[in-house]
Amino acid sequence: MVTAITHRVNFFDTDAMAVVHHANYIKWFEIGRVDFLRKAGITLTEMMNDGYVFPITNVSAQYISSGQYDDVLLIRTTPVALTKAKMEFSYEIFRDDTDALLVKGYTQNVFTHKDSGKITRLPDKYYIKLQQALK
Amino acid sequence: MVTAITHRVNFFDTDAMAVVHHANYIKWFEIGRVDFLRKAGITLTEMMNDGYVFPITNVSAQYISSGQYDDVLLIRTTPVALTKAKMEFSYEIFRDDTDALLVKGYTQNVFTHKDSGKITRLPDKYYIKLQQALK
Amino acid sequence: MVTAITHRVNFFDTDAMAVVHHANYIKWFEIGRVDFLRKAGITLTEMMNDGYVFPITNVSAQYISSGQYDDVLLIRTTPVALTKAKMEFSYEIFRDDTDALLVKGYTQNVFTHKDSGKITRLPDKYYIKLQQALK
Amino acid sequence: MVTAITHRVNFFDTDAMAVVHHANYIKWFEIGRVDFLRKAGITLTEMMNDGYVFPITNVSAQYISSGQYDDVLLIRTTPVALTKAKMEFSYEIFRDDTDALLVKGYTQNVFTHKDSGKITRLPDKYYIKLQQALK
Repeated sequence: MVTAITHRVNFFDTDAMAVVHHANYIKWFEIGRVDFLRKAGITLTEMMNDGYVFPITNVSAQYISSGQYDDVLLIRTTPVALTKAKMEFSYEIFRDDTDALLVKGYTQNVFTHKDSGKITRLPDKYYIKLQQALK
Repeated sequence: MVTAITHRVNFFDTDAMAVVHHANYIKWFEIGRVDFLRKAGITLTEMMNDGYVFPITNVSAQYISSGQYDDVLLIRTTPVALTKAKMEFSYEIFRDDTDALLVKGYTQNVFTHKDSGKITRLPDKYYIKLQQALK
Repeated sequence: MVTAITHRVNFFDTDAMAVVHHANYIKWFEIGRVDFLRKAGITLTEMMNDGYVFPITNVSAQYISSGQYDDVLLIRTTPVALTKAKMEFSYEIFRDDTDALLVKGYTQNVFTHKDSGKITRLPDKYYIKLQQALK
Repeated sequence: MVTAITHRVNFFDTDAMAVVHHANYIKWFEIGRVDFLRKAGITLTEMMNDGYVFPITNVSAQYISSGQYDDVLLIRTTPVALTKAKMEFSYEIFRDDTDALLVKGYTQNVFTHKDSGKITRLPDKYYIKLQQALK
């Protein structure tokens, strides 16, 4: 499963170079990741209620072309690895009208227990859904 | 007690009009308010550990002149009312080098219990410090 | 014309009180305002290309109830005054599923010339569209 | 030259996991980078007035430990490569009181002309200062 969701660039997403500030794309990877999980049947609210948190451990981004105010961007999210211990995703962000690739990215996150703060393994309840989403 | 703290405008605080995006000043009122409380001997972490949260109920801002990248701003915070039920502050944000007034603002917040979500009254432990800060 | 647009609350929109940070709603008023203008046939890019900027001069917000992660919010934008010299809008932000009112707001902006920085009057090209949108 | 600057974590920097949202560290790399350049005698405002922009082309971050509200962070910035064509920096962000390493990062940026948008080479005026900062 590869998912896609759009985001329109807001004025508040731009900076004084009149383009999207690069830190915003890291947030938009989150929009893609959350959307992927939702479409896989997993909501982060449910995971948090079950006591799981999912801190990001690695992020990288390559910036190819600049996004601008009012651009409609398409965020494409591809699972790289979804295990009981961690999730890895890659991302591509395109201008929706021209298909120009703006940014490529990658994130890794682990799972930890809310109370202990220690790394934990995801229960089957979630893992089965992730495995199905990988097919 | 009136407090002052400086904040240097970051590139990521600007927008495509090459000035500070107006929503940032609302965040900077928070920098002023938190600094005021710290100087009054109150840290929000301690309040949260005691089960209090302090949601904002009203915000207003008047924008007089634009801040720009790399400006050092001075945030002046003045208490308007500090009771057991709510806090009100007014703010003035100046360019530190020219003393030009950029923004005037106001916030009100109440106190609620973390668990019930209901409005509560601040215990004397905090109230006494706030009263001293008003002198 | 009264317009409505939805925004799903992102994880990065929340704060350590596990609710939407209040400054975000000021950004979301912008989403509503820009959407209103787009539906009235006006894009800010076109205005900027024509040399107009539109700094915010006043903002206010009343926070009634907290938004949370993953809430779908409905931003309703109502024009209050649209003249050649300024625009005023009011906003209501609701939870889309329960219709609960979370935030009410107001913004005023003027028009200035990009180069002079001085207040200017909007040409008929834009003003006529704004007048039609007020009907 | 290796530079250090502190940043106190604001409430608005946290998320519903009660830690700093990971995207903020990408912004704080910018605080470190801009501070490095300032200490090397270079201000971005001057570069922009000369027609240079400096888009980020690569970012990466490894998250080791979580920052929390009110932590004073120390951002240490180390130049990796400073040529006429690009700048590369590495970053380490520590808790200032415990020296705990929270985040390691890396950025690369190129130089482009404001008008053409094309990659350009930095003039000696800036390059000489960068070379001195590398010593």
